[in-house]
Amino acid sequence: MRPGQSRITTPRKESDTCKILSGVGQGSTLGTPIAVSVPNTDQRGNDYSEMALAYRPSHADATYDFKYGVRAVEGGGRSSARETIGRVAAGAVAKKLLKIQSATEVLAYVSRVHGVELPDDVVDHEKLTIEQIESNIVRCPDPVIAEEMIKAIDMVRLRGDSVGGVITCIARNVPRGLGSPVFDKLEAELAKGLMSLPATKGFEIGSGFSGSKMTGSEHNDEFYIDDSGNVRTRTNRSGGIQGGISNGETIVMRVAFKPTSTITTLQKTVTREGHETEFRARGRHDPCVVPRAVPMVEAMVALVLADQLLQHHAQCQLLRFDTNLPPANGEKGSENVTLEEAATRR
Amino acid sequence: MRPGQSRITTPRKESDTCKILSGVGQGSTLGTPIAVSVPNTDQRGNDYSEMALAYRPSHADATYDFKYGVRAVEGGGRSSARETIGRVAAGAVAKKLLKIQSATEVLAYVSRVHGVELPDDVVDHEKLTIEQIESNIVRCPDPVIAEEMIKAIDMVRLRGDSVGGVITCIARNVPRGLGSPVFDKLEAELAKGLMSLPATKGFEIGSGFSGSKMTGSEHNDEFYIDDSGNVRTRTNRSGGIQGGISNGETIVMRVAFKPTSTITTLQKTVTREGHETEFRARGRHDPCVVPRAVPMVEAMVALVLADQLLQHHAQCQLLRFDTNLPPANGEKGSENVTLEEAATRR
Amino acid sequence: MRPGQSRITTPRKESDTCKILSGVGQGSTLGTPIAVSVPNTDQRGNDYSEMALAYRPSHADATYDFKYGVRAVEGGGRSSARETIGRVAAGAVAKKLLKIQSATEVLAYVSRVHGVELPDDVVDHEKLTIEQIESNIVRCPDPVIAEEMIKAIDMVRLRGDSVGGVITCIARNVPRGLGSPVFDKLEAELAKGLMSLPATKGFEIGSGFSGSKMTGSEHNDEFYIDDSGNVRTRTNRSGGIQGGISNGETIVMRVAFKPTSTITTLQKTVTREGHETEFRARGRHDPCVVPRAVPMVEAMVALVLADQLLQHHAQCQLLRFDTNLPPANGEKGSENVTLEEAATRR
Amino acid sequence: MRPGQSRITTPRKESDTCKILSGVGQGSTLGTPIAVSVPNTDQRGNDYSEMALAYRPSHADATYDFKYGVRAVEGGGRSSARETIGRVAAGAVAKKLLKIQSATEVLAYVSRVHGVELPDDVVDHEKLTIEQIESNIVRCPDPVIAEEMIKAIDMVRLRGDSVGGVITCIARNVPRGLGSPVFDKLEAELAKGLMSLPATKGFEIGSGFSGSKMTGSEHNDEFYIDDSGNVRTRTNRSGGIQGGISNGETIVMRVAFKPTSTITTLQKTVTREGHETEFRARGRHDPCVVPRAVPMVEAMVALVLADQLLQHHAQCQLLRFDTNLPPANGEKGSENVTLEEAATRR
Repeated sequence: MRPGQSRITTPRKESDTCKILSGVGQGSTLGTPIAVSVPNTDQRGNDYSEMALAYRPSHADATYDFKYGVRAVEGGGRSSARETIGRVAAGAVAKKLLKIQSATEVLAYVSRVHGVELPDDVVDHEKLTIEQIESNIVRCPDPVIAEEMIKAIDMVRLRGDSVGGVITCIARNVPRGLGSPVFDKLEAELAKGLMSLPATKGFEIGSGFSGSKMTGSEHNDEFYIDDSGNVRTRTNRSGGIQGGISNGETIVMRVAFKPTSTITTLQKTVTREGHETEFRARGRHDPCVVPRAVPMVEAMVALVLADQLLQHHAQCQLLRFDTNLPPANGEKGSENVTLEEAATRR
Repeated sequence: MRPGQSRITTPRKESDTCKILSGVGQGSTLGTPIAVSVPNTDQRGNDYSEMALAYRPSHADATYDFKYGVRAVEGGGRSSARETIGRVAAGAVAKKLLKIQSATEVLAYVSRVHGVELPDDVVDHEKLTIEQIESNIVRCPDPVIAEEMIKAIDMVRLRGDSVGGVITCIARNVPRGLGSPVFDKLEAELAKGLMSLPATKGFEIGSGFSGSKMTGSEHNDEFYIDDSGNVRTRTNRSGGIQGGISNGETIVMRVAFKPTSTITTLQKTVTREGHETEFRARGRHDPCVVPRAVPMVEAMVALVLADQLLQHHAQCQLLRFDTNLPPANGEKGSENVTLEEAATRR
Repeated sequence: MRPGQSRITTPRKESDTCKILSGVGQGSTLGTPIAVSVPNTDQRGNDYSEMALAYRPSHADATYDFKYGVRAVEGGGRSSARETIGRVAAGAVAKKLLKIQSATEVLAYVSRVHGVELPDDVVDHEKLTIEQIESNIVRCPDPVIAEEMIKAIDMVRLRGDSVGGVITCIARNVPRGLGSPVFDKLEAELAKGLMSLPATKGFEIGSGFSGSKMTGSEHNDEFYIDDSGNVRTRTNRSGGIQGGISNGETIVMRVAFKPTSTITTLQKTVTREGHETEFRARGRHDPCVVPRAVPMVEAMVALVLADQLLQHHAQCQLLRFDTNLPPANGEKGSENVTLEEAATRR
Repeated sequence: MRPGQSRITTPRKESDTCKILSGVGQGSTLGTPIAVSVPNTDQRGNDYSEMALAYRPSHADATYDFKYGVRAVEGGGRSSARETIGRVAAGAVAKKLLKIQSATEVLAYVSRVHGVELPDDVVDHEKLTIEQIESNIVRCPDPVIAEEMIKAIDMVRLRGDSVGGVITCIARNVPRGLGSPVFDKLEAELAKGLMSLPATKGFEIGSGFSGSKMTGSEHNDEFYIDDSGNVRTRTNRSGGIQGGISNGETIVMRVAFKPTSTITTLQKTVTREGHETEFRARGRHDPCVVPRAVPMVEAMVALVLADQLLQHHAQCQLLRFDTNLPPANGEKGSENVTLEEAATRR
């Protein structure tokens, strides 16, 4: 997410020093909101001068202007991918909470760049490590395919063009029971979180679009009892979620990213005054966004899962397990109350 | 959505008589919530008796039990696709609001059943009509491909199996400016709405996953000025949304549906007591969900767009255009106030 | 809340048969929403005919018309106090949850009718019982003052007028820690809940308006350690809440109700067409709303406390106590993770 | 709100320099969130050292510790009244929006300090000006009573004690139709907003608690048609809100504040380890909070009204008036659609 990480990502140098403004003290969270400030240190305003004249194709320039009636060109405003630093910072807290609470791990990796693909089924999702992912600059756990991906990026980089790609994300050890029926199904929340990232064009859970080509007898995940006595499924085409609720299997998602809109090719466009013109980008930009988007994807998934964990805990863990509320000044409640008693008064 | 519509959908007969309980009077809405009741009339409880014993593979039986600690087997509880009737009823109101307010139209059709596909680029999305879609029982606007789809469904229907498919949905004449930066991008809201439908496994906007295989120079949508002086794009790989905000072009989405989980094939599964067993469905179910899911998809898209229209109107239309608020008992406000005046007091 | 309970309340007979439509099975909640239907059985439409012509003074007729541009006169629409039956039904569930979870009890009683007052300090809030409150038709736990209140109501009832009053509500054994800093303070949530009841004009917590006449040295609640080792306060002018968060002492609130707007006195008013006219009510209405409002007040307080309990549990009980989440298919999390580890990756 | 304003308020000097971080450019808002930073410049940490040892009576020390299990003593954490600067900053924007949009004005003043009261009915709420309020340090528009209030504060100030008070707030030219039925009544939203301010103990709208002592024939506000043809009420015991919705009359509220908890009198208290001890405050604090709370009250009322204005505009102004949505690329919608058409398809 931080630019300037390698030759295949944007050459801007942003050191990303985080200053925690609130919510943390003596090494732990205080229960109150955590605010983090990350100033931009390497902003060259004049790189953006031409943007002031013309809408950049496939950027948010035109739509922000349609919506708000103003143009705020410096750094792309809130449409700049720089905003994702807030997601990654919050995601670090969410990941820690998930790890402590339920040993849940979230890992993402690049599974396609342009035409170069790492098929999901050649990756062992149960054994995948962050070291494998971080072993190369494109963040693909297969070193051979990683090299091909880097070559594909280098090729468009040299001619000022860009390429798209796909990120696969898994979440292991997700507690059973996360998500809600109807509108707030777990896959719906994950889809919203991931499709809110810049440049995303598609989302899949489990079998995804390829599942639409299967029959029910091929697709269904049969249940069995594992050695620990847990209810498990032998296959995982459901992707860890059934009926909108996590089933304890690994959650598997794929997210499609379009090629970066900023390219140095000359493009036709218009000004906000309605004149047709041409535009060639000059700023510093990524030839391929997916390597840097890997931590963004992990962060959004961690944030969604942490939210769902809190909600599930609030609703479903309250009566069943909790006997540890701070004591009020009286005896604890007992189960010796019927719904009739509570309701009969009036 | 209503079962029993044709031989390729479920043979249960449900007349779906809606009773409006509140919110409508003298032919118009009253401003207060509209409640609609649709009783189930053809419920055969004993068809579900075996379900009480075993978790049906790839259904929500196990996960609901994990989450809530109870099993409510009649009709599948809230995981039954019958809940979508509420979405379609609400969607009818949303569609009408969109049509009156901005001539916005939402249309969906089946673009794949199993291996039979209607490529999006052979459909003219600007001229597509509901009559074309409704001209056959599979709801595919191409009559030849529709026949092949029906055959594909018939084939699995006869052997008690099921197939998945894809629905393409378009929204025409969507006002510019809908959606918000960062978390509530329009495509994120649409993804959540559609991925909350039962049996969905994937979502695409515009170029979708195929966009991830393109270069920026191929993918970018160049701007031009049309004959009416409007800012338009020549291509629409963005799918009508840029930077999370609608740009006035047709919104194009695709949703993947898995094959129906209920099949008459014998399957391995377990009971809630932890015993392995076998299960064969006997109820009445669809061999393919996509024809009946078409109105659900339209409804969810209409609901999301209507919500976004209200939000956009609240934020962005207030100061610019409104001079029609019911008069308070005094003069109207004037612009002769500076932010300094308002802020300087203390 | 149910009309027709005694001579001092409205003579309409409404049997209030509740039909539970969803969310409950085999004697317990299912985790999914509980819907309850209560049909009106004794609606005499023609009593409302004059209402169609003129705005009833101090009713919602005019404001609903201003807002929505329509008049829905039957039964007063959503401004009818009949809507409160939904609050009482939901409150019954909330009360049961509070009782089981933390032995929390919510009790309300009439502490003033017109000029007749039961001072709070003559009621022992720690020993107050529902039997004392329900021992008379005005729901005042002091039988002598109750008689005076009933006389005060009878006096206006005979001449077709109405009177206002005050309800005091206490919540005992509220867990410590409910409520949040800044905007969602516990007293703010309680104030909103209670001021959303029809006919309310004022809210007090603890010392209320009389507290504004005191000095800090008179008002502060000194802390001590009680026999069980708990931190307690000797006085309770804070009313059980400090800094927006419950402190374990009894929460004490007072709610002011205006006199019922419907009176048989001839009143000046206007029609929606803008003509001045006169109006005399003929329907069946309460001369004093407070006896019937007692269960509404209890219900709203129980609903607010139950919501806050869930929120508190989600945020503050997760990491400290919970070791009982349904197991995912792996080992449990451990504390051996530092924030640095979680954050350092990128 | 800013400390150090006069001898009757806290002697800390805080210059309150606001730095706008986002959302404003070229003198106008950009449509995106406005972030404002206000650093504390005069923080003397050691003044708070004793607080670390003992819970200050009637402060949030104990309850924050109960809730979060930690103590963050510097500056009182989020329970410090310093947080209200954010409310006042946001309120300045809300006031400007209200003024431009509907000429709505929000004014508050001190109407009681300890035993010294300015009765509401001697203030002409239609002619009240900010100059009258700001003409003295106690912010009471009556100069004679203001002097008495200042004396009352001086008296307790000299002996290290504090006093409470009441603030009256009015909103003039509020558009008709703000607020919603049932839970989100306008008075409920205002009550929540104001009861979320530090040190508040009571809220009244219109007749308030005194209304509970009246009869219906005394309390009802009769309607008439004014010279401009508007529906008006001759009296305003409703306080500008009927049935939860604004009626265009001036909204009148009163808020009770307890005496400041920080006093230099020796008080009994306990430590978090459970030992009884004594405590005497040494920091710099207000002997009376109400003069400085006046802008906080105005800000919260302005924020609630601005929110309600946006909501009302979204729901009720959409279909009736709007013909100015940015054009999509097609014809505008027409009214020639019946609900039947929209609903009949399936």
